[in-house]
Amino acid sequence: MPFSFELEAEDAATGARAGRFGTPHGSVLTPAFMPVGTAGSVKSLSPDDLTAAGCDILLGNTYHLMLRPGVDTVRRMGGLHRFMGWEHAILTDSGGFQVMSMNELNRVNEEGVDFRSHLDGSRHHLSPEEAIRIQDGLGTDIAMSFDHLVRLPAPADEVSEAVSRTVRWARRGLDERARLRDQGGGRMALFGINQGGTDAAERARCFAELARMPFDGYALGGLWVGEGRKLGLEMVEHDCTAFPREKPRYLMGVGHPVDVLEAVARGVDMMDCVLPTRNARRGTVFVSGGRLVVRNAAYAKDERPLDPECDCSTCKRYTRAYLRHLFVSGELLGMRLASVHAVHHMVTLVRRARAAVVERRFPAFRSRFLEQFASRETLAPAAS
Amino acid sequence: MPFSFELEAEDAATGARAGRFGTPHGSVLTPAFMPVGTAGSVKSLSPDDLTAAGCDILLGNTYHLMLRPGVDTVRRMGGLHRFMGWEHAILTDSGGFQVMSMNELNRVNEEGVDFRSHLDGSRHHLSPEEAIRIQDGLGTDIAMSFDHLVRLPAPADEVSEAVSRTVRWARRGLDERARLRDQGGGRMALFGINQGGTDAAERARCFAELARMPFDGYALGGLWVGEGRKLGLEMVEHDCTAFPREKPRYLMGVGHPVDVLEAVARGVDMMDCVLPTRNARRGTVFVSGGRLVVRNAAYAKDERPLDPECDCSTCKRYTRAYLRHLFVSGELLGMRLASVHAVHHMVTLVRRARAAVVERRFPAFRSRFLEQFASRETLAPAAS
Repeated sequence: MPFSFELEAEDAATGARAGRFGTPHGSVLTPAFMPVGTAGSVKSLSPDDLTAAGCDILLGNTYHLMLRPGVDTVRRMGGLHRFMGWEHAILTDSGGFQVMSMNELNRVNEEGVDFRSHLDGSRHHLSPEEAIRIQDGLGTDIAMSFDHLVRLPAPADEVSEAVSRTVRWARRGLDERARLRDQGGGRMALFGINQGGTDAAERARCFAELARMPFDGYALGGLWVGEGRKLGLEMVEHDCTAFPREKPRYLMGVGHPVDVLEAVARGVDMMDCVLPTRNARRGTVFVSGGRLVVRNAAYAKDERPLDPECDCSTCKRYTRAYLRHLFVSGELLGMRLASVHAVHHMVTLVRRARAAVVERRFPAFRSRFLEQFASRETLAPAAS
Repeated sequence: MPFSFELEAEDAATGARAGRFGTPHGSVLTPAFMPVGTAGSVKSLSPDDLTAAGCDILLGNTYHLMLRPGVDTVRRMGGLHRFMGWEHAILTDSGGFQVMSMNELNRVNEEGVDFRSHLDGSRHHLSPEEAIRIQDGLGTDIAMSFDHLVRLPAPADEVSEAVSRTVRWARRGLDERARLRDQGGGRMALFGINQGGTDAAERARCFAELARMPFDGYALGGLWVGEGRKLGLEMVEHDCTAFPREKPRYLMGVGHPVDVLEAVARGVDMMDCVLPTRNARRGTVFVSGGRLVVRNAAYAKDERPLDPECDCSTCKRYTRAYLRHLFVSGELLGMRLASVHAVHHMVTLVRRARAAVVERRFPAFRSRFLEQFASRETLAPAAS
């Protein structure tokens, strides 16, 4: 099999790990941050921009791609990698999150979900099997199980039933991949998703079942949906303790730098989130010293880069004054240059965390990072 | 002086010329097509994109930049080149076209123009002297005279008075540059603008005056404002016959490939237009075989690049199917990739025209180009 996960180092004092996940499209260094390429592009960025930012894996959304351009088109164009010109690894989600969170008009039963497209109201269906077939058709490197979400807070019995269904659906997805493999397809890795919301006992029950299935990795699902950082990180710690050491762990939908670092400290290997790039398109970027609002009038004549400590192509070439001007003027280039910084910043954060684990200085790195991020250093206008 | 214009070759059968204009920011090969960087960026494109597309000069709009971010900010940031990260040549317009065409609320008299900002209604003033000082403050390589436009059609006496005023303003602009040079500034080249609309006699009268002033080049103003290609090209031929052989000739606001090539055939050395990039952002691009509407459903599964004969980074990597998907999905990357092609296509057109002049085969190149452009070759869906 082309998939392999190797741990290169583990921090002695925390759960942090440095690893490497092999895929048919190259190695993915872990911890990894995956920018989100919703509809076949990471908004405003080219594959070269992503590679230059150090990115070696991105996420594609099954829901968006199945509706437009459709899996048949992507398959005919040689798969998602070729379609969008991306040579490195791709992880796809199962579509479950979107059909259940974006659609008021969905009908969920044991078989799967009937839903209407948010684009044109057309009817569609997703099931554990269909989600696997679509991801296979997209040519993903890492597919995700189709899981059942509940909107929290929810009654305990609803959470419990969602867990049980998630387990049944996980098995059906694995069976479907096995069928595809019998036919010469289904070459992608497949990750199971742990559910149970913020109920530690339910999460433990869910994982006890998933652990018996031959998944290539495990995701932490149903978190960062409003429960708060403290409780979220407790669940992360709980799951990572239960998950096997030798398989990659993916925390879905997490992208605030502090959350990312704290998740890494608890043993998470992979994360994705639209937050850094969505913020960037709206003119807010994370920098070493915190959160910078690019169009702040204080930066109108600020010759410093967004982040004086950053070596992304935006920070190497452009001043805050220029970036602010682009945003104030509604220039598309502003969204792009800020997005370049945003991806580079997150990828660099996990790379630096990785190096710190390897060099046995992760706790010091973590303290220094959190301290600096809270400092608001360089956010004030330069003395003029 | 850092400015020099050298003719390398002239076509024997037409007016076409191959030249080179030296600036403090490198040579500009002529004929040159200048993409428009209205407000300090060529919309959606980075300086690297422009360089990769073969571009060695771009145009900046004095009107937009004086209003936002303001000349003081640009000057303080080290000039427009440094502000926007562009190392090659920049030509700025004088602002005259915008203040007279964008503003209903302007007041023009002999001294200059009072106008209100389209952004916030604030009051501003431009005069022949101020236009030169602002362009000097922006750090342009080539500045344009502040000229007086009339909206055509106009009565003959109005056209005539605009010509006379343009001549008086041209002299005031040159005087202002001389004053700046006495103070150690004003290092940019300065082009005069010929006016007179579609009245050949008025254009001749205008140029008879301008020719006596020490301009570094001459522009053909007041054309491509609705008079039609045939009449426009007649005026181009008329002006180019009158203009001195040894100075560069700039046709303002022309960007359709056929117009560009026909203007080159009549002796024009430089052109600018928003058309190719504006079209591109709206999903229409010029290709060798004509005009391609990217979101055409016929291209949904078309594996060909936008232009099979193009070697821009978009055509080397992406299919029509992908570009169409990006436009249909409203993805920003679509506007960017199409703009890359659009700039490359125009720059390549003038480069190929230049090579044809040098290699004494311009007439054949011209015929072949026009024939292919009219052919609609490759625009039909691929046989499937």
